[in-house]
Order: sequence, then structure tokens, then C-alpha cells
Amino acid sequence: MTFRQPLTTLQHFLYRTIDNFIKYIPMKPIYAETIAIGDEILYGQITDTNSQFMSVELDKAGVKVIRRTAAGDTKAAILAALQAAEAVADIVLITGGLGPTKDDITKKVLAEYFESGFRLDEEVLAHVTNLFTSRGRAMNELTKQQALVPTKCAVVHNAVGTAPGMWFERNGKIFVSMPGVPHETEKMVTDIVIPRLKNFFSLPTIVHRYVKVVGITESGLAETIEQWEDALPAHIRLAYLPSKGQVRLRLTGLGQTAAILNTEIEAEIAKLKPLILQYIYAYDQDEMENTIANLLVSQGKTIATAESCTGGLVAHSLTALAGASRYFLGSVVAYGNAAKIDLLGVQPATLDEHGAVSEQTAKEMAVAVRQKFHTSIGIATTGIAGPDGGRPDKPVGTIWIAYADEQGVTAKKLQLTQDRLLNINMTKNFLLNWVRLKLIE
Amino acid sequence: MTFRQPLTTLQHFLYRTIDNFIKYIPMKPIYAETIAIGDEILYGQITDTNSQFMSVELDKAGVKVIRRTAAGDTKAAILAALQAAEAVADIVLITGGLGPTKDDITKKVLAEYFESGFRLDEEVLAHVTNLFTSRGRAMNELTKQQALVPTKCAVVHNAVGTAPGMWFERNGKIFVSMPGVPHETEKMVTDIVIPRLKNFFSLPTIVHRYVKVVGITESGLAETIEQWEDALPAHIRLAYLPSKGQVRLRLTGLGQTAAILNTEIEAEIAKLKPLILQYIYAYDQDEMENTIANLLVSQGKTIATAESCTGGLVAHSLTALAGASRYFLGSVVAYGNAAKIDLLGVQPATLDEHGAVSEQTAKEMAVAVRQKFHTSIGIATTGIAGPDGGRPDKPVGTIWIAYADEQGVTAKKLQLTQDRLLNINMTKNFLLNWVRLKLIE
Repeated sequence: MTFRQPLTTLQHFLYRTIDNFIKYIPMKPIYAETIAIGDEILYGQITDTNSQFMSVELDKAGVKVIRRTAAGDTKAAILAALQAAEAVADIVLITGGLGPTKDDITKKVLAEYFESGFRLDEEVLAHVTNLFTSRGRAMNELTKQQALVPTKCAVVHNAVGTAPGMWFERNGKIFVSMPGVPHETEKMVTDIVIPRLKNFFSLPTIVHRYVKVVGITESGLAETIEQWEDALPAHIRLAYLPSKGQVRLRLTGLGQTAAILNTEIEAEIAKLKPLILQYIYAYDQDEMENTIANLLVSQGKTIATAESCTGGLVAHSLTALAGASRYFLGSVVAYGNAAKIDLLGVQPATLDEHGAVSEQTAKEMAVAVRQKFHTSIGIATTGIAGPDGGRPDKPVGTIWIAYADEQGVTAKKLQLTQDRLLNINMTKNFLLNWVRLKLIE
Repeated sequence: MTFRQPLTTLQHFLYRTIDNFIKYIPMKPIYAETIAIGDEILYGQITDTNSQFMSVELDKAGVKVIRRTAAGDTKAAILAALQAAEAVADIVLITGGLGPTKDDITKKVLAEYFESGFRLDEEVLAHVTNLFTSRGRAMNELTKQQALVPTKCAVVHNAVGTAPGMWFERNGKIFVSMPGVPHETEKMVTDIVIPRLKNFFSLPTIVHRYVKVVGITESGLAETIEQWEDALPAHIRLAYLPSKGQVRLRLTGLGQTAAILNTEIEAEIAKLKPLILQYIYAYDQDEMENTIANLLVSQGKTIATAESCTGGLVAHSLTALAGASRYFLGSVVAYGNAAKIDLLGVQPATLDEHGAVSEQTAKEMAVAVRQKFHTSIGIATTGIAGPDGGRPDKPVGTIWIAYADEQGVTAKKLQLTQDRLLNINMTKNFLLNWVRLKLIE
């Protein structure tokens, strides 16, 4: 039950009354366990991103995740995990072990666990065949077997892969088996599994809103908004989710009507904004790239990048979004000095006197790339990402970024870490946030 | 016991004899379970990196990790996890829940589980006090309590934090509790816990080797190498680890001497190679980027990229490695047609007649970028990454890649998916593998 138009006072009054009334009806929480299957996880050879993804989506849906398990590719281990999960959880989400190869046995074990035979699913077979032919590949026996599914399960369509998901129900509990390939399972979870679970169980309404900040530490942020946080109503929880110099604030509201929760949380965010306005770079599903994209499009501006140490990552970030061609025109990755001179027209004298990693070079790169692509804005990066190339006066982690527009060009020096990839990513984050701040000046 | 120089026939004979002899001495494998404690993990609010780190270190030490669990911050959940682990594992490594705040109860629950009282550890107290004063912070009651440890545990020194680790032993099984802060636990595991475990248990030797392939499906691969796989000796196991169109084959050998295992697995890989030579892009810790870097450096060649749909990702991948400047000179990301004409000199006529996404445009981009950067090789991408921009004759996922060197230029058409980011990444993978194949022609 959602409303696009603002709620009337009467609506507010009625929903509030309903909410207060319903609060007295006890609601049984729904418990979930996630199980990731694969020796490669237990041996630490691949990172299990699926379990965290499922946790986040279940949490957003109002399901309480009470345990996460990873088990090996053996029948005994998988059976034990299923039994243990069935004993404590209403929902069991399983990933991994669905490949066509010998070491993938999840499907067999599930059929045994649910005492089920197998059937050939014509829709899955058609989908797999179509996937293969559209990619110009020939079907083989192993691939056909992907279409064999336990008779006691409902197929969960795998839109982007060949291994079908399997939905089992027993004694009011739901078991869903999905592939180990993250982008396949993520699509299944969000598009099919979570909506079906919401229908199957009567889940409370949970509303999550995100306020994403950069340029302030978690503890500094906590101090700044302490009084606001303490004044939050009991049914709205706050969580700090920090990562790579950015912090996501998540407000979680629990109630019966999304309309009320949304307006309540919106009101709290309105109180929060003035406290940390300059640090907020995005809301909800938006990321820095979306914010910059929206600002550029709304201001009718275009951008180009001249990259040395970031090696194209800034351009890649700006082009990761659909419709990037409206504001992103291109980039010159000038890794060597020759390229800086030939393609960007950086003065050889500048490189001789100040070096490639210098304020002057960064500025010339930003100005030049703006001219080359005829954009409103040109940005540049040049620095020592490491691990080699450091010098006493310019140690590893010394990075210059520059911003040029019709008003001129400015540069900033960053002193980052010893970690090459971290330096490349942090430079990208700092530069994009600087662009954001320039665009809202 | 490892050898750098190749083994002599005599050594082979002797080690083989020893191994065959030792095979008759039953050696019980040592099993481990890792337990991560914290609601923030189950809710997906933080990424549990500790479990994977412990898995990697245990695996390297020859311990078989048989289960990974994450449990919530409740006494019942922690006790259940400990009981379940003690039932199956010889080693139980626990992280999290050691903070000074109310919601951290791991220490209390462990004391109860081992029926232990508490004592104040003077060394820990001195360490914590020193940490605080050196950081200019005042000690408080909560912090002093960090020095309270169960009487039945041995303290594991936390060199970089305040919460001490706790080492319990019961019925020949080891339980170690460590903090949730990754860099604190990582230092404890490598410096103290793993060495102590090696002393406590007599551990077998485990050797892992990787063969990484691209350009063939997991099922196609399985069919191709089926006979070789079936003929593997019992103490060498094979696993398929697929991701984004690439598959890593992992061979795991279990025995007494690393020297024998390495030569045995090397021999199996030698048999495997001729079956799938054109698909193998790297071994062990190497990735495609390393392979290409090594090929370019050894052949004294340089490369530059002209990117449209990949938006700089190919350049970013080639520059993610240290020392990239030896072979990577730069990239032009020409997103708009104007940039393709102005910066790369693509003929306007080509764009008019064939469009930006065409064999001709891709070829002109590759040739042009090679000339611009004076490199041995120029590669190019142009395509419709989606989700918009598709047309009946050029649907989303239509991508052209081109390769130019002193012998000329060739182009290939890819028909990929509807997913923008997947298309961008797959294009990068296909193109880099094509470069690899050209370099080994």
C-alpha cells in the first residue's frame, strides 16, 4: 500500500490509528538461514559474496537471518547443513553446487533430502538451448542435464544463466537452491525469491532509506548527529555502514503501512540534512556516479578525463551507468610522458621542471583534455600508485588531481597509502566527490 | 620439505618409497570450523572477511576446513555454534563479539561453555593501558574489563588491539577466540595461532595448483577432459571454479611431502595441457593481466587501447599491475563520434556508412590508437553495452573488437547479453584473451 501523492491529515490520522492498533497484535518473526556450498569457499579460494547479498535482501524484507553456513561439496556436509537449517529456520536459501560438473552435487542431494525423483523441464531446456545457440555454442549432454529438476520443486527461472533455481516447500518451510555465480543468484533473489517469500509469509512492512556521506569519519559523523540519532522514534533504527572512506547511513522503519513509514523517515531525513549537508553525496540506491550524472545532465554540462595513475578507472566509473553518453565524451589515458605531450599537449618543459607527478602537469592535463573533447569540465589524475616509483620528495601514494572548467583550473594534492589498487580507487573517489562539490557550488 | 632444484631419479625413488610406506600408516586429517559472531554480519551490514582469511591460513597449514558458520550476538546462538563445531572439528576458530560494549558477549559465553571463572591478566591490563595512554586516551572501567579473561584459557596476545585472544583446549580439541577487527585477528592468526596449531597437531601436506581457462564453457571443458579427470589418482582432487566466462581448475593433492605432491600434480598438468592448450590463460596466482604483461615484456612489445563501450575498463585492467608502464602506454576512450573523429582520426564517412558499432570503425580505432601512442599493438572496442541503444540489426550486446599490429588489423564481432556491466566485463575478458592468443601465435 504505497502513495505517490502526499498524505492528507486524515490519512495520517487513520494510518497512525491502524498502526497503533496493529502494534498490539503479536507477529511471529520469520527466521532464515543461508547456506553456501563449495569447497572453494571453505578453502578460502573464492569470496562468498552470495551470503551477504542474501542477508541484505532478507533483512530488507523483514526476515530475521539467524545463521549463515558454508558447507563442503560432500553429500554428508550438505545433508547436515539442510537438517540443521530446517530445525531453526522458516526460510533456507542455498547457493552453489549447481554446475554441470562432477563436483557439483547439490541438486542430487536436495532430491534425496526431499525424497524426490527427477523430471526434464521443457522450459528450462528451451532456455538453456536458446542461451547456447544465441552465443553460438553447441549443446552437449552435460548441459542438457541442467534441465533435469527434482519433481518436488518449482523451478526458479535463471534469466542470465543455465542452472535453474529450485523452490521446495515442506511443513510450511521454504528451501530455495540457487547457483553459485553471483550475478545469476542476485537476479533470482531480487526478481523472484524475495517477492515470492513476501507472498508466502506475512512479513511486517520494513522501509529502508539510505543517506550516503563522504569526507567525514564514522566517529566524527556519530558525534555530529548524536542528538538527532537519540531522538529517533523506537520503530526507526539507524545503522552505520562504512566502506572505503564513505559511510552509508541506513534508516530502517518497522510498521504496517509503507506510506506512514516513508513519510516518517522522510521527516527524520529532513531534520538530518542540515547537520551534514556538505557530506551527503547520494541517497538510497544512488551512488556518486548517479549524483554526478544527474548534476551534469540537469546543468547541461559535459565532462572528459585525463588519467595517468588511475589508468582509465575514472572513465570506467563514469561510463558504468546507462546513458553516460549524454554527459561523458571521453578520456585520454596518458600513462607515459610521451603520451602526455603528444596526445594532451603537456609542455615538455613542465615535465622537465616539475615532473609528471606535479600540480602543473595535473593542471595542464585537465585543461588540455577539456579542450580536446570540447567539454564543460576536464578532470585529471597523475600520481605514484606504487608499489614502485616512490622517491623521498614524492613517496608512493603522492597523487595530484585537477579540475578545469570555464572559470579556470585548480589542483589538489592527495597523500594516500602504500597499496596500489587502494590508491587508484581512493583517487577516483576523491576526484568524483570534488566534481560533485564543484557542481553544487 | 620442499626442493627448488628438480628432483633426481634417486630422490623420486626414495620419496615415492617413503610415501608408499607412509600411506599405510593411517593419518587422521585435522578438521576445522570457523565461527564468526555478530548480528551485523547476519544482517549483511558488514562483510565477514575474517572467515575467508582464516580459511586460507588453515588450508595452507594442511588443516581441512569443513564448515563456516556465522552466528548472532545471543548466548543461545553462540552456545549452539560451539556445540555443533566441537562435534565435527578438531580446531574451532572464533572471531567477533569481544568488544567492550553490552552487545559483545562471546567472552562470557565461552567462560560458561568451558565452565571457567575469570581472572585479571596483568600483562593484558598493562598492554591495554599502554595502548590507551600512547594514543592519548583515558582508561575507563569498560576498557579495564578487556583484561578479564577466563581462568581456563591461555591468552593470545593482541599486538595491535585491546581485546586479547583466548586459547582453550578440551579433549584434544582447540578453540581460539579472536576479535572481529580484521587486522587484529589476521596478525594473531599468522603470528601465533597457526604456529601453535602446527606444534599441537601433526598436519599432512596439502598442495593446491590452478589451471585457468577461458573461451570454453564449464560443461564443454568437463567433456573435453573427462578421461583425464577420471584417471586422476585418489589423493589428487579436481574442482571447477567458474566466474564471468572464465573457469579455474583447482588440483588439490594430499600427502606427506610437498616435493612429491608438486611433481605428481605437475605431471597431471602436463597430461592436461595438450587437451586444452588454447584455452589456458594462466596458472596458479597469475591472472590474464599477468600473462599478457609477461608476454609483452618478454617480446619487447607495447600496447595501447581505443575504447568506446568498455569506457576505459581495458586500460584499467592493464594498469592494475605494478610496472604496467613497461608495456602499457595509454588509451583513448572515445565515447562520442566527435571524439572518434577528432582524437582517433576515424573517417566521418566510415561512421556515416557503417555506424560507430561496426567492423570498419573498430578497425580504424585500433589502427589509429597504435599510431597515436607509437605502440606495437593497438586494440579497440565499440559496441552497444545497453540497456538502451539497441536496434533490430544491432541489438544490445552487439560489440566489435579489433586488434592491430605491424602485420595489419583484424576485427571480431561479439554477441553478448542484455546486462550492461556484464557486457563491459565480458568484452574486456574476450579482448584480453584475444591479445594473449595473438602473442603466442
